[in-house]
Amino acid sequence: MRMYDLILKKRNGHELTKEEIEFFVDGYTKGNIPDYQVSALLMAIYFQKMNKRETSDLTMAMVNSGDILDLSAIEGIKVDKHSTGGVGDTTTLVLGPMVAALGVPVAKMSGRGLGHTGGTIDKLEAFKGFSVEMPQDKFIKNVNSIKLALVGQTGDLAPADKKLYALRDVTTTVDNVSLIASSIMSKKIAAGADAIVLDVKVGDGAFMKTPEDAKILATEMVEIGKHIGRNTVAIISDMDQPLGLAIGNALEVEEAIKTLKGEGPEDLVELCLELGSNMVVLAKKANTVKEAKEMLKETIKSGSALNKLKEFIAAQGGDIECIDDTSKFPKAKHIIPVISEKSGKVSKIHSENIGIIAMELGAGRATKESIIDQAVGIILNKKRGNEVAVGDIIAYVHANDLEKGNKAVKDILANYEIVEGYENNIPLIYDIVR
Amino acid sequence: MRMYDLILKKRNGHELTKEEIEFFVDGYTKGNIPDYQVSALLMAIYFQKMNKRETSDLTMAMVNSGDILDLSAIEGIKVDKHSTGGVGDTTTLVLGPMVAALGVPVAKMSGRGLGHTGGTIDKLEAFKGFSVEMPQDKFIKNVNSIKLALVGQTGDLAPADKKLYALRDVTTTVDNVSLIASSIMSKKIAAGADAIVLDVKVGDGAFMKTPEDAKILATEMVEIGKHIGRNTVAIISDMDQPLGLAIGNALEVEEAIKTLKGEGPEDLVELCLELGSNMVVLAKKANTVKEAKEMLKETIKSGSALNKLKEFIAAQGGDIECIDDTSKFPKAKHIIPVISEKSGKVSKIHSENIGIIAMELGAGRATKESIIDQAVGIILNKKRGNEVAVGDIIAYVHANDLEKGNKAVKDILANYEIVEGYENNIPLIYDIVR
Repeated sequence: MRMYDLILKKRNGHELTKEEIEFFVDGYTKGNIPDYQVSALLMAIYFQKMNKRETSDLTMAMVNSGDILDLSAIEGIKVDKHSTGGVGDTTTLVLGPMVAALGVPVAKMSGRGLGHTGGTIDKLEAFKGFSVEMPQDKFIKNVNSIKLALVGQTGDLAPADKKLYALRDVTTTVDNVSLIASSIMSKKIAAGADAIVLDVKVGDGAFMKTPEDAKILATEMVEIGKHIGRNTVAIISDMDQPLGLAIGNALEVEEAIKTLKGEGPEDLVELCLELGSNMVVLAKKANTVKEAKEMLKETIKSGSALNKLKEFIAAQGGDIECIDDTSKFPKAKHIIPVISEKSGKVSKIHSENIGIIAMELGAGRATKESIIDQAVGIILNKKRGNEVAVGDIIAYVHANDLEKGNKAVKDILANYEIVEGYENNIPLIYDIVR
Repeated sequence: MRMYDLILKKRNGHELTKEEIEFFVDGYTKGNIPDYQVSALLMAIYFQKMNKRETSDLTMAMVNSGDILDLSAIEGIKVDKHSTGGVGDTTTLVLGPMVAALGVPVAKMSGRGLGHTGGTIDKLEAFKGFSVEMPQDKFIKNVNSIKLALVGQTGDLAPADKKLYALRDVTTTVDNVSLIASSIMSKKIAAGADAIVLDVKVGDGAFMKTPEDAKILATEMVEIGKHIGRNTVAIISDMDQPLGLAIGNALEVEEAIKTLKGEGPEDLVELCLELGSNMVVLAKKANTVKEAKEMLKETIKSGSALNKLKEFIAAQGGDIECIDDTSKFPKAKHIIPVISEKSGKVSKIHSENIGIIAMELGAGRATKESIIDQAVGIILNKKRGNEVAVGDIIAYVHANDLEKGNKAVKDILANYEIVEGYENNIPLIYDIVR
């Protein structure tokens, strides 16, 4: 088999066989096929597309390029949740305890990563003493007993995806739906998921800018799941404004705790119920989404979800006092109100820029070397559709550096659109693909 | 400027500016832009095409990537001829003396190269003592006095083309008309041509398989010539059977001498008159092609072309005795007739395979290290449309190795199609684009 012939075949619009896809993924991972042939193939794929069979084969070839986590010692159906990435997305912190409280095993592996705020690990380190360092057997024991555990990235999962993504990133071959879908799915499958719930974000702060594009990506991933025997459901949700009110690490943890206490912001609660109920159904702990939603609401009312959070944090060495008394979390020196100079209704909050403002305050990493400031961030006080009068507080900046804080105030004002006569008709949830 | 943005622009179907094309050609030549980004761009160009302006700019950027021969010290308009490559193409050896005899300066640079037979230098080395090693000033002096000189490749002409071609070759991005046309034209222009006559071959033994594709390529090159101020004419000619009768090095030189003596094969003579007359017109030594053709015929009748060949060979140290007595050329040990087992008319001679058979006899280089055997090759005795009876000799194999010779006989038989009732209606010259 020659890479040349594979490029030619795809360039001419033909289908690649499973063996051909495995040949190129394996050869590239091992360094036997050069970058310049792979980038030519990727560009040919961009123009000629891949069908569902090819996309599934690509996904599995990337899974098989490295380690695959063996979670078979965990009882029950392991359902993983994945978000395509948004601003102020606190769902993981809320969902984990809720579904675990219903007996769904949540065996989560997470990284630190780059972004507007830290990764899940960074956020949970707001709990003093919390650690994700533990041997595999303890991780599995914890999931079996508590139903919820989080470890740092171990093993070499889907190295082909890592290498291909880096190449796509510099050759303008990222935005092909087969390549995006197989990249996401391969990582989840290598991490041991039996079933997957996807949160495909759409809007200003998301990779997919229109509901139509998001639907295409969602459908592609659900189809891959079907092909390879991993039940997959995709929720298409709004990211045209940040989710919830908090953007920042300790701030988001506090918001998650509030939500588990029954005091969460409406949109965050609604999305958690939608994602969580689908996880519960895929894990076969409920027959219908409706039934699962009632069960999840009960975990909040009864306090079982909040208790689950405490169990989980304590088991990994974290100080749980701040769950009952959130004033013990790291706090920023300055809390500066952002005061509206306009009146009307909030018609738009530019999510992506709000995320960048939070990062500039120190909440996220611009480069791998950046140090996260747990305390800083933004709390929104007004969201899309809310009435605002001149002088109203639309948000709060939590800053440790006054100069950065004042700049953030100005930047936030510039990223709120407030107009008269606005009617909000953007839904939180656009569609569900299963 | 970032290469990333150029790839994206072309991928999305937009036109690249002159500055952008110069940026990428220059950056790639210098090694500042990696192969994998260039191959992605080439594949994007394959799908999205380049317009005439972009193709001209690419040509000139490749010209400017290296040395440009300065032939300004040569009097007159330097017209170069280029063939896209065929089998048994002896035109250069015939044309040079003919047009030089009319005062058109022929300042030829040639390589050895790979192929069915050797390059022009290899062929001329059939003249004992002939050398292409000479300083630039002697080369120019020779052209000014004799009007015909040949040097080996000097300087670093169009290095960008060399590097790009090598990359296209392994990434299935060769067959795009803009990339082919700019590659050919950049080399001719860097070699100092004021005007160019192109022989675009079409058929079995050529890169372009149909007259339609050949016309597109021819038009593209003529357009580039217009854009950059180099008058260019393209002749589209048949390569569905070898040109002339000889395939091999000394054999082709002998055929050229015969042609200059007025005893050349009809198709070779006709094509030489067509190409040569356009060269003469471009060099402004005649007003019309018709007039130029008469002048060229006269160079054969009067013997002035044959004398020009002698002057040229002698000036570069070659033994000209064998021009009058061709028995002095290197001869093969075995001359084996190829005897027809069928009767009818020759309907096809598979050019490309005939070329490969000649190469296997030792006439050409399979790799850079191969040594050319001057003496070996094939002389065709029957061509398309000729009547053949069982027992007739259709060709002669000239071999130094009897085993190879016998194999060649069998192979030639397999590559002649002889059928009853064939009517030859393939023209020698399909079209002329100017």
